[in-house]
Amino acid sequence: MDGARALMRTLVESGITTLFTNPGTTELHLVEAAEATPGLRSVLALFEGVASGAADGYGRIAGRPAATLVHLGPGQGNAWANFHNARRARTPIVSLIGDHATYHKRFDPPLESDIAAVARALDSAVRTPRIAEQVSSCAASAVADAASAPGRISTVIMPADVSWSPTETMAAPMPPTPARIVPGERIERIAALAGRDAQTVLLLGGPACREEGLRAASRIAAATGMPVFTETSPARLEHGAGLPDFPRLGFYPEQAGAQLKGASHVLLAGVHEPVVIGFAYLGQPSSPVPADAVMVTLAAPDEDVARALTDLAAIVAPGTAATVAAAARPAMPSGPLTLQSWPQVLGALLPEDAIIVDESISSGQGVPAATAGAPRHDLLALTGTAMGMGLPLAAGAAIAAPDRPVILLDGDGSAMYTISALWTHAREHLNITTIILKNSSYGILREEWEHLREPGQNELHDSPLINLGGAPLDFTGLARSMGVPAAHADTSEELAEHLTRAVD
Amino acid sequence: MDGARALMRTLVESGITTLFTNPGTTELHLVEAAEATPGLRSVLALFEGVASGAADGYGRIAGRPAATLVHLGPGQGNAWANFHNARRARTPIVSLIGDHATYHKRFDPPLESDIAAVARALDSAVRTPRIAEQVSSCAASAVADAASAPGRISTVIMPADVSWSPTETMAAPMPPTPARIVPGERIERIAALAGRDAQTVLLLGGPACREEGLRAASRIAAATGMPVFTETSPARLEHGAGLPDFPRLGFYPEQAGAQLKGASHVLLAGVHEPVVIGFAYLGQPSSPVPADAVMVTLAAPDEDVARALTDLAAIVAPGTAATVAAAARPAMPSGPLTLQSWPQVLGALLPEDAIIVDESISSGQGVPAATAGAPRHDLLALTGTAMGMGLPLAAGAAIAAPDRPVILLDGDGSAMYTISALWTHAREHLNITTIILKNSSYGILREEWEHLREPGQNELHDSPLINLGGAPLDFTGLARSMGVPAAHADTSEELAEHLTRAVD
Repeated sequence: MDGARALMRTLVESGITTLFTNPGTTELHLVEAAEATPGLRSVLALFEGVASGAADGYGRIAGRPAATLVHLGPGQGNAWANFHNARRARTPIVSLIGDHATYHKRFDPPLESDIAAVARALDSAVRTPRIAEQVSSCAASAVADAASAPGRISTVIMPADVSWSPTETMAAPMPPTPARIVPGERIERIAALAGRDAQTVLLLGGPACREEGLRAASRIAAATGMPVFTETSPARLEHGAGLPDFPRLGFYPEQAGAQLKGASHVLLAGVHEPVVIGFAYLGQPSSPVPADAVMVTLAAPDEDVARALTDLAAIVAPGTAATVAAAARPAMPSGPLTLQSWPQVLGALLPEDAIIVDESISSGQGVPAATAGAPRHDLLALTGTAMGMGLPLAAGAAIAAPDRPVILLDGDGSAMYTISALWTHAREHLNITTIILKNSSYGILREEWEHLREPGQNELHDSPLINLGGAPLDFTGLARSMGVPAAHADTSEELAEHLTRAVD
Repeated sequence: MDGARALMRTLVESGITTLFTNPGTTELHLVEAAEATPGLRSVLALFEGVASGAADGYGRIAGRPAATLVHLGPGQGNAWANFHNARRARTPIVSLIGDHATYHKRFDPPLESDIAAVARALDSAVRTPRIAEQVSSCAASAVADAASAPGRISTVIMPADVSWSPTETMAAPMPPTPARIVPGERIERIAALAGRDAQTVLLLGGPACREEGLRAASRIAAATGMPVFTETSPARLEHGAGLPDFPRLGFYPEQAGAQLKGASHVLLAGVHEPVVIGFAYLGQPSSPVPADAVMVTLAAPDEDVARALTDLAAIVAPGTAATVAAAARPAMPSGPLTLQSWPQVLGALLPEDAIIVDESISSGQGVPAATAGAPRHDLLALTGTAMGMGLPLAAGAAIAAPDRPVILLDGDGSAMYTISALWTHAREHLNITTIILKNSSYGILREEWEHLREPGQNELHDSPLINLGGAPLDFTGLARSMGVPAAHADTSEELAEHLTRAVD
């Protein structure tokens, strides 16, 4: 056995079954080891950001880490933006990065760079085995570290000579640290607060957006009258018929500000203090929380938020049932597609048990309402606001849940960052239907500029830096060129026809 | 004037005329300012790695910096790999990165990350104006820093509130630090060495690969019998008929080892000690330089290497002329394309005054010989070995030299990292002909594994992690879908026909 095989064997023994990779020369022993290790599925991406985004999608759905393998600093650079989204989603990922042989680095070869510094900017722990005997314990620790609550990226840098050196040393798998239980005294103190006539608002994030947390929150809301919001961009929101449906905290400061207006206390369940997402605006505060409101943490991100909500509901809402959305699809619209109609087509046709990946940005504001009564589904949102998440995330989600249909909602601008992921969709025969909303612009930038622009500043409506005209972007041609069937829709009828065929 | 306009005005007054960008919300004031500033051409990329690679190509040809503008940490992540190639090419670039408003950062918004740490991993200086009055001096310093010998990336992080705050403060442009002159005593000492019967080998890199350095090196070689090699992956090599033609130091250790075998002294002109490029190999040294050879620096990368070579030639080769390649195109081959024949088609048809961007990796080994007698051209090589350089670099080179034809030689694997650059080629009407060598594999990984594999290890010839089969990659369809005309060639005749039409 060499270090590379010790690494892959340890990952499998620690419960990792999937590796997303775009390898290079320094990873060849790791490629050989991955192929030689039973129980590991290796998936090739043509760009490292596809591998990192797929690992994010996989981890959000599987609830356990996949591994990624990329080529030194440049590979990590290409993976970085989707690792950023994964970091914000708190997705567990073991990031493997091949490096030069230890003795080769002092020559400063062309690919040399400070891999660890760039990994640490993702809040990743970084482990580098210096001899092959250290590989297995590094790998076991990295898996445990990634999977410990609330979840994170954990990096192992593998020098080439460590990969190819012999070893027989294997470490035992290490258990991850589970989410901490919130102490009963804190729950009781908060229950007392909820019972008073304070204007308390409950914010849900992280695992609170799964069924158990949502149901408990619904009971609390019904018993206390407390308004409830979910975070703006949840990593994984369970949604649809039979589940409680709470509004998401708005993207724009005036939306979120109106939602939280008058709150005396903001109860945080799985989230930190909310912030206006994209930007700070002139003359507007960064936080939508009223300046005199008190933040109260029910459960921090590394605490068991679903249990804390359930425990709180047991005190303040002992006999109260959750309020859930009735099954109710929107009526099928007709005529030219609009920002209102296309989500209704989606809601009308959404298959059972779907996973919706949402990177539709400015085109997707109608999606939550149109899908609230559709069959129950998971929604994976753009946690870190780094464009190019959608196509890769869909790949990883589809691999984590091969029996579930994945529906990707993407913008034309955002799809182009990682367009080569379509090739992986085709090659792995993934059950993904991609809907690209083509507005031929970075629509979100137009909207934001309308918020920001002051007298004397130019409009950017026709700016070639915001509009995508001037050359074609034929997504049906792009998709077909990578093996994905594609069709164009101008009307609701056409979209319905294509969508029906695609998810069949 | 706001900080954003002060920034753009300072860049233009400092000699910057081109901005490559993929902007986001936090850059909108900078977008507005770029459009409002006369003398600045802004070019949109659909992916940040296209912007960074284009700035590299621009800088290599123009000899002065372009600016890039990308969106916070994720934008810099996407730009990183091609910034890495630029760093290794010592290309001057001013990297502008929008950031959250200073007061917004403490809320840790979704896009927040340590931008400076990731920039520093590129050996970039990082400047962050904290108030609008500091913007102009930061920008002027950054341009001077980027353009100072030998050239580097210089980063300016622009907080949104600094961009939108008013200022009238403008700093004067700052002169860059030119290359240092090599002291005459060092030249004389080296001249004495060259006159002895030492076995001295001369290695050329950086600006020594331009005409003046090549001519001086040729004279030195003719007068002293000293073998001369250029670095394996030059940032910019002047090549073709009428210029000296030296072999490049080999990629593989046995090639480079054979070239340097028996050397007692290695004379370094614009380069550091050479290293085996891609990898360290089991049982082979990292450096191809014989263990007992002495390294002698004629000119370090921040010194004026062309002048040092000329000064040395004046002493050791006062009456000797340079030996230059005669005009001699290869005969036009016929029949199915091979690794031998396609470069001959290129050599036979290369237009006058071309710029060749070479990311052909394993398919391009015949290019140097086939173009040695072709019309004089510049060759831009893959300096940092980070894939995905070709399409972006070609865009920047074409914008820097609109009157010159750009010929890009790319692999199918390498082209896919930054394939959306084709859209920028079409949109900017760039004079670029892209030749994609499709071997449906990461051919370099196959070759490397043959060097590395030991008994008991699997062959990877059919590995799905190295082969690109299993789903189509139709490059003609991809190109047409982004507005670039395309055709497929199986034979030399077909390639000749398409190439003739393309460069016409």
